[in-house]
Amino acid sequence: MSLLIAVKGWNPAAWASRLARHLPHHEIRSWPDAIGDPADIRYALAWKAPAEVLSACPNLKAIFSLGAGVDHLLAQPGLPDVPVVRVVDPDLTARMAEWVALQVLLHHRQHLAYAAQQREGVWRDLEQPAARHVRVGLLGLGVLGAESAKVLVRLGFDVAGWARGSKQIDGVTCYAGEGELDAFLARTDILVNLLPLTPETRGFVDYALVSRLARDGALGAPVFINAGRGGSQVEADLLRALTDGTLKGASLDVFETEPLPAGSPLWKLENVVITPHVAADSDPEAISAYVAEQILAFEAGGALRNTVDRATGY
Amino acid sequence: MSLLIAVKGWNPAAWASRLARHLPHHEIRSWPDAIGDPADIRYALAWKAPAEVLSACPNLKAIFSLGAGVDHLLAQPGLPDVPVVRVVDPDLTARMAEWVALQVLLHHRQHLAYAAQQREGVWRDLEQPAARHVRVGLLGLGVLGAESAKVLVRLGFDVAGWARGSKQIDGVTCYAGEGELDAFLARTDILVNLLPLTPETRGFVDYALVSRLARDGALGAPVFINAGRGGSQVEADLLRALTDGTLKGASLDVFETEPLPAGSPLWKLENVVITPHVAADSDPEAISAYVAEQILAFEAGGALRNTVDRATGY
Ligand SMILES: NC(=O)c1ccc[n+]([C@@H]2O[C@H](COP(=O)([O-])OP(=O)(O)OC[C@H]3O[C@@H](n4cnc5c(N)ncnc54)[C@H](OP(=O)(O)O)[C@@H]3O)[C@@H](O)[C@H]2O)c1
Ligand SMILES: NC(=O)c1ccc[n+]([C@@H]2O[C@H](COP(=O)([O-])OP(=O)(O)OC[C@H]3O[C@@H](n4cnc5c(N)ncnc54)[C@H](OP(=O)(O)O)[C@@H]3O)[C@@H](O)[C@H]2O)c1
Repeated sequence: MSLLIAVKGWNPAAWASRLARHLPHHEIRSWPDAIGDPADIRYALAWKAPAEVLSACPNLKAIFSLGAGVDHLLAQPGLPDVPVVRVVDPDLTARMAEWVALQVLLHHRQHLAYAAQQREGVWRDLEQPAARHVRVGLLGLGVLGAESAKVLVRLGFDVAGWARGSKQIDGVTCYAGEGELDAFLARTDILVNLLPLTPETRGFVDYALVSRLARDGALGAPVFINAGRGGSQVEADLLRALTDGTLKGASLDVFETEPLPAGSPLWKLENVVITPHVAADSDPEAISAYVAEQILAFEAGGALRNTVDRATGY
Repeated sequence: MSLLIAVKGWNPAAWASRLARHLPHHEIRSWPDAIGDPADIRYALAWKAPAEVLSACPNLKAIFSLGAGVDHLLAQPGLPDVPVVRVVDPDLTARMAEWVALQVLLHHRQHLAYAAQQREGVWRDLEQPAARHVRVGLLGLGVLGAESAKVLVRLGFDVAGWARGSKQIDGVTCYAGEGELDAFLARTDILVNLLPLTPETRGFVDYALVSRLARDGALGAPVFINAGRGGSQVEADLLRALTDGTLKGASLDVFETEPLPAGSPLWKLENVVITPHVAADSDPEAISAYVAEQILAFEAGGALRNTVDRATGY
């Protein structure tokens, strides 16, 4: 009954000691240094690990992604055909809603313009619409999109969202599927992406898409905010839209290549806020407890929760 | 039945035309150009007008302040002894909660540090506490303080407030009076001032007060946010606290002297966000309707709402 920790960019020892506390009767092993006999491995905790490491374990029962997104796993051919469980955690969800609320308010209240005035020592008030006259639209109404939408409603914004299936969220106008995308975009002043990265959403936010956003909004021109995945945005297109006025501004936490390369012109745009993929960090304590609890329930005959659909990719 | 518009820094004609629409049977006059016989004046709409203008009207029944604060009126000796009505308006209240939420989130999520990294092209994540581990404290739990507190609770912060009298607000720990000030400050990481300016609150936020804030908080050092009145802060003391580490940062919308003088060193502090007294602008349409409605109700024998207490000054 072994558990394999297969993480890149994180310290496996720290995860091992946390999990050992929650699962004292399981043996914890680590990739790449201490895998032992792959036939012993029943579960894997994975973050950006190569699929070969996992497919080499013939008795694997489940893979736990150490993040809410599973694109790092599903994009790889040869991933073994076992359930993939993703992180759904109230702490992570709350952090995402904080980040989204901050970025929406920051553009809404013209923080970048006021900061520029402050640098010049200029005291001048700018015309300011009320939140109820600003239409925020969320791409994705899953765990993170729905909670962010609810917080934005509480802040007074006029909120809508778009998902694959139809939804009901108090105070949020919900649009579903390709057929309603146009109506959704046409009423949106601030677009927030919280879609998972899948074959369908790769490159989704391009010049054509941002050109379909509302152009009659109270902010003068639309704003784009991305805390989903960088693979869903076409950065060359965003750059063009941000310099030709199609977009007034943007807040980006995720990028096509991370870390964002030093040469990316996005770093220098005055109307862009960049954060280094920190919108909603996973809390290792909470996640270790979550994974351990799922493993124990599974071994007691229960079903795994928050498994992803291999066909849709999320 | 005349109404006098006595405003400084605003265009009286714009107010006159708005009010005329709501009060077609009242004559609208303006200071300083078109007062006419002061004995005709029953009501005054005032913003920073000299008390003499109002005391020259022997038949004045009420003064309406064109803002939520009345310090611009009550600080003047010789103000006639008639009811003073202040603005309480859902649009203004919501705008204040937006501004407070933005500034609290901005410091909480270390926006200034990330913006500095962005300017240098640096990709580095900073340690980030969750909102529930950050204690926000509101000075003042009136109309604006209470609503801001509720929004901050929804965002997940650990929220407390301090007022003169005791309060009950869901999810907010309420402290009352001088006797509980110490306990309130000692548990506060982000202090938000929404007190009115009165003789008691003038110069209230000084070096000694900010030194009493929590020093064991998740942000490293406390933050001060002021959207009440600049007269409540001692700017020389804030400057010292912001440069010697007693305060980690600040967001200031109000100042001892407004516009903030070009020579103020506050402009240049990297850990301070300055906005030019725009946290919650009054919406002239909403306020005209509010004042007209109060006048009509009063003339029909009703009582004026939201009058201030001349003894306490708010
Ligand atoms: N920046 C960060 O720090 C950070 C942190 C955590 C997560 N994330 C990202 O956030 C993403 C969302 O997380 P979540 O927990 O909210 O995921 P989720 O619960 O799986 O929700 C995904 C949402 O996207 C919708 N969707 C997916 N594909 C679609 C398509 N082709 N067309 C229309 N709608 C589509 C889904 O629609 P249905 O509901 O109709 O299926 C659902 O509403 C993650 O996948 C991850 O990439 C980023
Ligand atoms: N920056 C801007 O754009 C802007 C816009 C609008 C207003 N403002 C400012 O915001 C202020 C607050 O507005 P509001 O509508 O919330 O006022 P309010 O409803 O009158 O509330 C004032 C609060 O302060 C408390 N308070 C007053 N004096 C105190 C003292 N000496 N000790 C302890 N607590 C005291 C009161 O306590 P009790 O409840 O116990 O009486 C009350 O909770 C206004 O006066 C104005 O100066 C600024």
